[in-house]
Amino acid sequence: MDFNSFLTSLGTSFLICVVLMFLFTWLARKPGNEVVYYPNRILRGLDPSEGGRRTRNAFAWIKDAFSATEAGVVEAAGVDAAVYLVFLSSVLGILVLSGIVLLPVLIPVAGTDHNVNAHAENSNGTFNNLDKISMGNVQEESPRLWAFLLGTYWVSFVTFYVLWKAYKHVSNLRAVARSSPEVKPEEFTVLVRDVPRAPPDQTIKDHVDSYFRALHPETFYRSMVVTDNKEVNKIWEEIEGYKKKLARAEVVYAESKTTSNPNGTRPTNRTGFLGLIGPKVDTVDYCSEKIKELLPKLEAEQKLTLREKQQAAALVFFNKRPAAVLASQTIHAQMLDTWTVMEAPEPEQLLWTNLPKKLYEREVRQSIVYGVVFLTVVFYMIPISFISAITTLENLRKLLPFLKVIVDREAIKTVLEAYLPQLALIIFLALLPTFLMFLSKAEGIPSEGHAVRAASGKYFYFVIFNVFLGVTVGGALFASLKIIIDRPGQIVQMLGTSLPGNATFFLTFVALKYCSHLPHLLGCC
Amino acid sequence: MDFNSFLTSLGTSFLICVVLMFLFTWLARKPGNEVVYYPNRILRGLDPSEGGRRTRNAFAWIKDAFSATEAGVVEAAGVDAAVYLVFLSSVLGILVLSGIVLLPVLIPVAGTDHNVNAHAENSNGTFNNLDKISMGNVQEESPRLWAFLLGTYWVSFVTFYVLWKAYKHVSNLRAVARSSPEVKPEEFTVLVRDVPRAPPDQTIKDHVDSYFRALHPETFYRSMVVTDNKEVNKIWEEIEGYKKKLARAEVVYAESKTTSNPNGTRPTNRTGFLGLIGPKVDTVDYCSEKIKELLPKLEAEQKLTLREKQQAAALVFFNKRPAAVLASQTIHAQMLDTWTVMEAPEPEQLLWTNLPKKLYEREVRQSIVYGVVFLTVVFYMIPISFISAITTLENLRKLLPFLKVIVDREAIKTVLEAYLPQLALIIFLALLPTFLMFLSKAEGIPSEGHAVRAASGKYFYFVIFNVFLGVTVGGALFASLKIIIDRPGQIVQMLGTSLPGNATFFLTFVALKYCSHLPHLLGCC
Repeated sequence: MDFNSFLTSLGTSFLICVVLMFLFTWLARKPGNEVVYYPNRILRGLDPSEGGRRTRNAFAWIKDAFSATEAGVVEAAGVDAAVYLVFLSSVLGILVLSGIVLLPVLIPVAGTDHNVNAHAENSNGTFNNLDKISMGNVQEESPRLWAFLLGTYWVSFVTFYVLWKAYKHVSNLRAVARSSPEVKPEEFTVLVRDVPRAPPDQTIKDHVDSYFRALHPETFYRSMVVTDNKEVNKIWEEIEGYKKKLARAEVVYAESKTTSNPNGTRPTNRTGFLGLIGPKVDTVDYCSEKIKELLPKLEAEQKLTLREKQQAAALVFFNKRPAAVLASQTIHAQMLDTWTVMEAPEPEQLLWTNLPKKLYEREVRQSIVYGVVFLTVVFYMIPISFISAITTLENLRKLLPFLKVIVDREAIKTVLEAYLPQLALIIFLALLPTFLMFLSKAEGIPSEGHAVRAASGKYFYFVIFNVFLGVTVGGALFASLKIIIDRPGQIVQMLGTSLPGNATFFLTFVALKYCSHLPHLLGCC
Repeated sequence: MDFNSFLTSLGTSFLICVVLMFLFTWLARKPGNEVVYYPNRILRGLDPSEGGRRTRNAFAWIKDAFSATEAGVVEAAGVDAAVYLVFLSSVLGILVLSGIVLLPVLIPVAGTDHNVNAHAENSNGTFNNLDKISMGNVQEESPRLWAFLLGTYWVSFVTFYVLWKAYKHVSNLRAVARSSPEVKPEEFTVLVRDVPRAPPDQTIKDHVDSYFRALHPETFYRSMVVTDNKEVNKIWEEIEGYKKKLARAEVVYAESKTTSNPNGTRPTNRTGFLGLIGPKVDTVDYCSEKIKELLPKLEAEQKLTLREKQQAAALVFFNKRPAAVLASQTIHAQMLDTWTVMEAPEPEQLLWTNLPKKLYEREVRQSIVYGVVFLTVVFYMIPISFISAITTLENLRKLLPFLKVIVDREAIKTVLEAYLPQLALIIFLALLPTFLMFLSKAEGIPSEGHAVRAASGKYFYFVIFNVFLGVTVGGALFASLKIIIDRPGQIVQMLGTSLPGNATFFLTFVALKYCSHLPHLLGCC
């Protein structure tokens, strides 16, 4: 990519950004769109149009975001959001602290050397002006290279320092959240999986109760066994659907009562497929009747489910926070594959269908998913390249002749020719996170948040393999092979440069892993 | 090694064995040696010569060992010994169950083929009769190879089955030991390391007490802080030395009181270096005086140590077994490097000097030790080969001319020439476990048993690398490379053969790891 094309691309992106921002401002100012743009404010009982027009422009949120305190963020969006902001500020900190020292030092060091000029004559102009302030402009075996070597150590030092601060900060955030007087249900709860077969005269619930009451006689409160709610949910959703329809029909009926028509027109609908066929009925009466009919059925099914459809997983509640923490981190059974306990996720995070999956099933699923992820990471670029190659304008015209009318126009042709090959890349990369999330859930992970972390991890390996390994290491490998053949003395220098970089990279990964998921701490209860 | 030399070696070993056994029988029958040969019986108050001469022969213990029940083994030598016996019987079980099926099937399958005979003519007699009943006698691409393929799957199946039984068995053994009414001190104890700096007005003991009393208000009993006992130990050992001397002197004095000399001769010794120089004193008086002198010094030093020399580690005792188990498996502090808890080892197993080592020091030590182990595993054979090469008889005669007199005798020469090159190997391999144990203790591991496990792990890698990788894989690799070049179709067959073998190997390792160190189980308390 040459410099002009880079600027053009930058300009296009900026233009799209400005257009979208104006669209946002325009739409957000329409009072009817308040429920779309300010749902959080409405839910918290604030006036969505507070502050008048000023809060409705596309830049107001930036001021809000900068003036927000960390305590405010924790209160509004939880610890996770605050931790995410700590990550972002850590990355910014590493960038700024490195740049403050390195830019004023290294740019003059490189800029005042003459390697590029010396080579420019016999290289057919493959160098540009940006290269003159890069390491490439330093002459071979020049003492100036020490500045760059020290530079990598400075970046490492900055990274370690910032990460250490971030770790402590996140740790404190979590400790404050844990020790807050505002109790949360998951702090009293332990998730139990792989409940073994109950004795013949007991239900699974009795089994769980007796087991945990025996092991935690003073702190066990009660248990809730996971049930297979498929049937109940179906009926419940049906009832909810009729309730919505009823509410809407009542509003329509009320609004139809104008002065000219004081009785209004009762709304009607057909009972068949999509309301298109079948006998016509009065909607209000029909829905009320249906709800009345379904409610006892729901209750009967609920009772049946609680009694008959208990699954081999349960949530066990304790009467003290420390007791739940102690229990969630302790092995409860002699055999590895029974009574697996773990800290309970937040109630809304539970992936209920994954809870009753058995240990061996989870292990097998995990192995299969890891295999699929490996194939995805390594071979994902192949179909993209293939599709990119065949979806050129020329090929499309040949394969889909009816497109000729559009494609032959000059303006459309220019734009399409520029963006078509990238389209496959953009679409496939957009689909990737969804696919990885699907895979993570298929592993049998018990909570939404954990599945998100697992998907992020998979995405991380994807990025590492395709960007870091493919581009950076691939290039460096060829370069180093060339150096090994040409001049073995430089390998030591190269190792000195790459060592702190790789260590930084590795430690960043480890630190993020630690920060993002620490187990419950007894010391903070 | 040809077959005759193999038989000779076997014969030599058998002869040595028989000689040693007769030596054992002869020595064990002397009444004065009872304390050496039957210490356990004497300690348990049994008569060492019980059963007369029959129990004193070299084979009686075999009958005893076979008639011992598992409960008896657990009682006499603990769960660990019983687990070890389970390992041995598992290995025997795998061998026997595999052999019962495979030997009668595979030997005839191989023995009735003619591959060796077909090749014997143009191979200068590199085959012998043993080769005729091995897989090498099966002709290439013969359907008989399927029998060997199925054989490997049979071995795998047997291994999985036996290991699964052994796992359950060991698990039950542990559960029984844990739930026995006979309580052990370590079951109520948690080992706490990385105690952070105490507030200025508190000792470390107060700090530990207040921290654990706050977290476990109902179950905390008391704590014992690790102290630096170096000075106290020195004084105590001095006192013990004098006590032993005193006891011996008193016995000598009593025995010297014969009828001819009713007053006896009071034993004397010199006070200087090794009792060789210095003034001569009466031993009984001198030792009693010294003990009297040292006792108050010991008491003063003990008090000082308890108060001043507290280290950053402690044993915390609970008033219930489940409380200790729960506490030992739970994270106790916000920062990773403070208040590290773990289950307490048996009191006599504690490596006291390792307890106060800080987390970072342990990590650094571990890294260094792992580096040293890597070098040891990979390069241990090099000095052995080197020394073996130079310690041939010829070289020794050149280097140490005074040996000529011995070495030139024909009989000695024969023996030395046969065993000298192996001597270096034997000596170095005998030193290896001691060296690995030293390295494991240097890691900062808190208990003797854990250090033994760590040393065994290191030894395992040594065996894997030097035997398995060096011999088996090295050979197979060359063979497979040859096959890849010659006939790619056979690779699938090779993979089919090696897959279950490698899986078995890996699973055996995992199973041993699991069996040998399971954490405490709450369900068995």
